[in-house]
Amino acid sequence: MQASQATPPASFAGWLDDTNDITRAFLAAGQIPGLINIAGGLPDPQVYPVDALAEIAAQSVAEFPNETLGYGTIEGLPDLRRAVAARYSTDSLRLSPENVLITTSGMQALDLIGKVLLNEGDTMAGQFPTYLGALDSWRPRRPHFRNMNLQTNDLDFVAAMTGAKFAYTVPNFSNPTGRLVPEQTRRELVAAARQTGAWLVEDDPYGGLSYDGPIPPSALEISAEDEPDDGSPYSGPVIYLGTLSKMVAPGLRVGWAIAAPEMIAALTTAKQGSDLCTSGLTQRMTCKIFEAGLIESMNPVMLRLYGGRRDALLAAMDRHLTDFFDWQFPEGGMFVWASAKDERLNTDELFKFGLEELVCVTPSSVFDSQEEFRRGIRLNFTINDAEALEEAVIRLARATRRLLATLG
Amino acid sequence: MQASQATPPASFAGWLDDTNDITRAFLAAGQIPGLINIAGGLPDPQVYPVDALAEIAAQSVAEFPNETLGYGTIEGLPDLRRAVAARYSTDSLRLSPENVLITTSGMQALDLIGKVLLNEGDTMAGQFPTYLGALDSWRPRRPHFRNMNLQTNDLDFVAAMTGAKFAYTVPNFSNPTGRLVPEQTRRELVAAARQTGAWLVEDDPYGGLSYDGPIPPSALEISAEDEPDDGSPYSGPVIYLGTLSKMVAPGLRVGWAIAAPEMIAALTTAKQGSDLCTSGLTQRMTCKIFEAGLIESMNPVMLRLYGGRRDALLAAMDRHLTDFFDWQFPEGGMFVWASAKDERLNTDELFKFGLEELVCVTPSSVFDSQEEFRRGIRLNFTINDAEALEEAVIRLARATRRLLATLG
Repeated sequence: MQASQATPPASFAGWLDDTNDITRAFLAAGQIPGLINIAGGLPDPQVYPVDALAEIAAQSVAEFPNETLGYGTIEGLPDLRRAVAARYSTDSLRLSPENVLITTSGMQALDLIGKVLLNEGDTMAGQFPTYLGALDSWRPRRPHFRNMNLQTNDLDFVAAMTGAKFAYTVPNFSNPTGRLVPEQTRRELVAAARQTGAWLVEDDPYGGLSYDGPIPPSALEISAEDEPDDGSPYSGPVIYLGTLSKMVAPGLRVGWAIAAPEMIAALTTAKQGSDLCTSGLTQRMTCKIFEAGLIESMNPVMLRLYGGRRDALLAAMDRHLTDFFDWQFPEGGMFVWASAKDERLNTDELFKFGLEELVCVTPSSVFDSQEEFRRGIRLNFTINDAEALEEAVIRLARATRRLLATLG
Repeated sequence: MQASQATPPASFAGWLDDTNDITRAFLAAGQIPGLINIAGGLPDPQVYPVDALAEIAAQSVAEFPNETLGYGTIEGLPDLRRAVAARYSTDSLRLSPENVLITTSGMQALDLIGKVLLNEGDTMAGQFPTYLGALDSWRPRRPHFRNMNLQTNDLDFVAAMTGAKFAYTVPNFSNPTGRLVPEQTRRELVAAARQTGAWLVEDDPYGGLSYDGPIPPSALEISAEDEPDDGSPYSGPVIYLGTLSKMVAPGLRVGWAIAAPEMIAALTTAKQGSDLCTSGLTQRMTCKIFEAGLIESMNPVMLRLYGGRRDALLAAMDRHLTDFFDWQFPEGGMFVWASAKDERLNTDELFKFGLEELVCVTPSSVFDSQEEFRRGIRLNFTINDAEALEEAVIRLARATRRLLATLG
């Protein structure tokens, strides 16, 4: 029979026209045989404590069947909210469970923040450069994006955040730059948040991946210094986001937001219509991961593995890329961020030349809400060994040379 | 130290003012000692195959560590997309994996549909009465809700759906009415969708809970009859939503959307910014649940348990409530829907009187997007045994008598 569609299907919402499809290009790239992919931000599967997690999964169901298999409260398992509050509390940062919302991944927390704060056309400020994956979560709200470059010395934080509903930052080893935002900058961000009324989102997936020593206090901790000392739970302007994804395993899709109770209540209302509650199974597993000290036992293994690979990548870049790129030394995280010396070099083009040479890197355009910055690339060092990283860099140098040749 | 907040925190998005807080009232009610709760829609925990699911959880991690613990593709595990496509395919309904998106619960599918179809102010039509939980998922998009009463004989389907981006329906044992939408009505819905261009959302959590015999073909199947017979995957106007929640366990938070590939692609873009991907662990567990035939082995147990309780609730209502309410016989699902004979009886008030008598029911206002319908109540029969149901009905009769007495 023939379709009897009298009217074309109703059109999609407007924001879908704005979205980029670089993720799809990456996924398609993953199918190319022989490709070395240094574009992603994936943990090396060899760090997963598979036996421990298999046992934890079974125990969670067997010991807590109603909780793991049934519906839970929207905010998250009481035990897990308590555990997160305890984990982040300090002498000056008083967190209670009402400061905590369990989310289905860090990405969901970003989506919920957009839902509760952004009306169409509202302004948000974002640390530049910023991973487009985060920006994607806010596109359905159709905000106005304002870039906020924390690396310049003359940034006026108050001006950057005035009129913005929130500022989005990744202070620890920002994706894509791998840069650690210094304590003084964090203090200025917190002060500007208090002064302007903008909420300060502190997204912290990479804080545990510090290869060279301790990191500054979080904006959350800094903001607690100014809180009233009356025993009440934290009520400041920071919305801190944590996740299991980089420290244990992304496949569990468990994250948490820490914020003032009024913000947690609003995020909870948004979560109710988003997925009702996070899986009781993955939440109970997270409790057991905390109790077993799995994060702490995995961390030295990851630091040794990833730190060594960082050094291997940087050494390979020293050998093959100094003619073409400048880069910063990343003290942590998963990435090296490099900028082309030749300003004519468009890294969207380099991405394509790279695929022909069987190497995949991330072009800088995906980290710019204006999609204008075209001279940078992001290189990942966590999932390939030193030998593969060396080969990837050689291929990238070849692709760069070929691209430059076309420019004459 | 004192807080130095110079400007109040930025305000929440406008839709948060519109939302109802009845869910919170229910959660608070859950803390009242001795309360019999017949308001929810929860499976009885005794039906969970705990040992089987504990083993499946451990096996999933042990056998598929990278898939369960790592990032997956946005659309879902290829094995699971294939399994869902195969499960719903018939001779005339040709589904390929590109017709399937795995979602983090059925609720997420509703959220994603709102994101991809609704600009602010767009119209959607919803089967009346409709569970407010579903409507909640669309509130952040600020649509115009249009009620569509499928129980009247004079509904003009084309008029109801003209200008709407989509129509939301629960044809099998609709929440809250427990009513089975007849085949002829389904055919009219599909025809109106084709004629008007509105997408037809067919939400089907309860289809497996049919106590008295077979159910009509789904709107998805009906719409496939009009599809071109050229071997291409389904491309019709129905967006079918399935979930594990009522048939196995809600705690896994796994659902699926089946739709035309263009719709699946749009939903995938929205899912990318919502949670990036559904947990690989709960997805692989779903594959194993399908393979082990757990749904099929659990179903007779659930039908016996819940069917018996439905009959017990109806018998108790016959004994105690005939003076006050009329109700329909539900052929399936989890609920009995009753309307007060006295039109002055406001069931929002009855909800409060009920709590005083230690019984919790759901008032009809939460099933009406206009929040105007005040004469109905929804009674659940799945989580309480016959004795508790009898006692709940006795308490409800007492509350009703007391409330009517106040009306003079």
